[in-house]
Amino acid sequence: VGILADVIDVLGRDDLRGRIGRELAAFLTERTAELAEISGDLGAVATTIRDFVLDGGKRLRPAFGYWGWRGAGGAAASDSAVVRAVAALELVHACALMHDDVMDGSATRRGAASVHERFADLHRSAALAGSPASFGRAAAILLGDLTLVWADEMLAACGLPIEAVVRARPAYDAMRTEVMAGQYLDVLAQAQPSVSASTALLVARYKSAKYTVERPLHLGGLLHGCPVALLTCYSAYGVPVGEAFQLRDDLLGVFGDPVVTGKPAGDDLREGKRTVLIALTLEHAPPAGAAVIERLLGDPLLDTAGVQTMRGAIEDSGARRRVEALIAERLQQGVAALAKGQVEPEASAALTELAELSAVRHA
Amino acid sequence: VGILADVIDVLGRDDLRGRIGRELAAFLTERTAELAEISGDLGAVATTIRDFVLDGGKRLRPAFGYWGWRGAGGAAASDSAVVRAVAALELVHACALMHDDVMDGSATRRGAASVHERFADLHRSAALAGSPASFGRAAAILLGDLTLVWADEMLAACGLPIEAVVRARPAYDAMRTEVMAGQYLDVLAQAQPSVSASTALLVARYKSAKYTVERPLHLGGLLHGCPVALLTCYSAYGVPVGEAFQLRDDLLGVFGDPVVTGKPAGDDLREGKRTVLIALTLEHAPPAGAAVIERLLGDPLLDTAGVQTMRGAIEDSGARRRVEALIAERLQQGVAALAKGQVEPEASAALTELAELSAVRHA
Repeated sequence: VGILADVIDVLGRDDLRGRIGRELAAFLTERTAELAEISGDLGAVATTIRDFVLDGGKRLRPAFGYWGWRGAGGAAASDSAVVRAVAALELVHACALMHDDVMDGSATRRGAASVHERFADLHRSAALAGSPASFGRAAAILLGDLTLVWADEMLAACGLPIEAVVRARPAYDAMRTEVMAGQYLDVLAQAQPSVSASTALLVARYKSAKYTVERPLHLGGLLHGCPVALLTCYSAYGVPVGEAFQLRDDLLGVFGDPVVTGKPAGDDLREGKRTVLIALTLEHAPPAGAAVIERLLGDPLLDTAGVQTMRGAIEDSGARRRVEALIAERLQQGVAALAKGQVEPEASAALTELAELSAVRHA
Repeated sequence: VGILADVIDVLGRDDLRGRIGRELAAFLTERTAELAEISGDLGAVATTIRDFVLDGGKRLRPAFGYWGWRGAGGAAASDSAVVRAVAALELVHACALMHDDVMDGSATRRGAASVHERFADLHRSAALAGSPASFGRAAAILLGDLTLVWADEMLAACGLPIEAVVRARPAYDAMRTEVMAGQYLDVLAQAQPSVSASTALLVARYKSAKYTVERPLHLGGLLHGCPVALLTCYSAYGVPVGEAFQLRDDLLGVFGDPVVTGKPAGDDLREGKRTVLIALTLEHAPPAGAAVIERLLGDPLLDTAGVQTMRGAIEDSGARRRVEALIAERLQQGVAALAKGQVEPEASAALTELAELSAVRHA
């Protein structure tokens, strides 16, 4: 989260963050009215989606979508239609997070109660019949579904010419299929006795890199009608830079300062995440080090001493250094590809800064 | 299910059922190839969605969509693009069913294992780590999400002119919001200590009538560019007829012959469904009859004698007769509205037959 605060500053040019938030608020206000016409009992649904979408979120995907548009020659001040189109990505992401929390059974999200917990609370405070947990899960599944269909509606009705939206749809469609596929591969990887670094990297590519960086850039570029060469350039930048983001996130999940990350130290270790970092540790550690990891990984009661022991084993295996090298390599590769492409200068500068920020050590 | 077998015969004109199935198969073959390119591990995802969509389903929503098109003057043999467009509704429905089974914890669907059970089995047979049930639920949530986004993709790429698809989108969007809202209201109703007949009817309207009949008719009509008067006529037919379908379903869930319904006798009573039938029973039964219902409703171990006792209380309260009257009233209303509208004759005949079939007593 720490690193991303800086990222947002870069993405905040053109008051982008504020504009995205305002477009989302306006769209959700219309949807709230639509639900209210059906039944007053839908008030909690509308309010929860609204709070979830507006109270947090780094707007990273809309921002890449916007710079994809700008990079293709789209005007900064042109219109709110582009901002509306890319803001739709935030609704896809809200669905992914709501459903992810149900799948993981996570009680919190962005420091507040997760959606299923909010509805379990509603169930308890209204003394309803049946299980609060089941009610909460059912509500969160439906709210996620609703947010996903609204995303689609927001993109379709963004106000750009129909042909622009139709032209950009392949990127949007690919993004949605890829993130669901990546999420499934992640769930499957977490259930394996062991995961290779290449599998962990494949998950990161679909679940994070293509979803967060490459496809949003494509969407923005296609909305402006960019040539294929620019899409190729965006891929050559977006995939490695997106992977670098995820690899940095993996390092922060283990070595990150809680003050910077906003999460307890070693949280990923307690959750037992099968990241590239863990895979590389197990591939290179001596038997004793590997045994430490296998024994402690995923222990929900892992204490500070346990976190320290695991950090030592990871460090000693050379995995931390290897991941830093992978990040540096990807950063260089992405920025070089960007420099070679025909990206409009201001966008190129913003995207270069973003990539570099992703490589800063915050631990 | 029994009544719907007849319904399908009517809807089978123009080899509609076969054509819908073939369009879905072709679309899913393309998506399977797309997933296979990402990872071989996605084979189970593709196969399960394919089996789920192709092995069963009454194709009721695509069929109403098709007759909506025909009723507006669309040609029978014109093209497969219309069939592709309306077949997308079947994918929306597949998502709704997969997610519904997760929410209810239902182990079976259409006589086979539900999607989350299939993935729990996969987890067990591959001896994966963690809980098979959690893995199954996560997979079913993601498969539903994927099917929902594919629906959208199938409609957008159906091959009709872009303007036709754009024109029809409001019906499609309304349908998706309404079914999610209806599902939430249903979950909420099931958690109430008591539900009024008017609330139960509101749930039936959004969850079933508008979703299954009215909006698919609108979608088909709008794809052909029908006038507003025809949409009004479709609503005046579709809402009451769709409610009649649901009310008949409620009666079958309590009084239906297992041979006809394909479900154990009194299944809705065991599940504790708060239907219009139950609401009317509780509103009109003498205290002793109401007490029987309150005591036995939702008892998962309810035996044949218990089902008989409850049937007696429902019958004695006059609720069965009242629901039959509501069905007859809605049927008459819907058919009269259809006759007054400017619906193309063959479509009008098919829709009239469908409405009448919905009123046949199969118990």
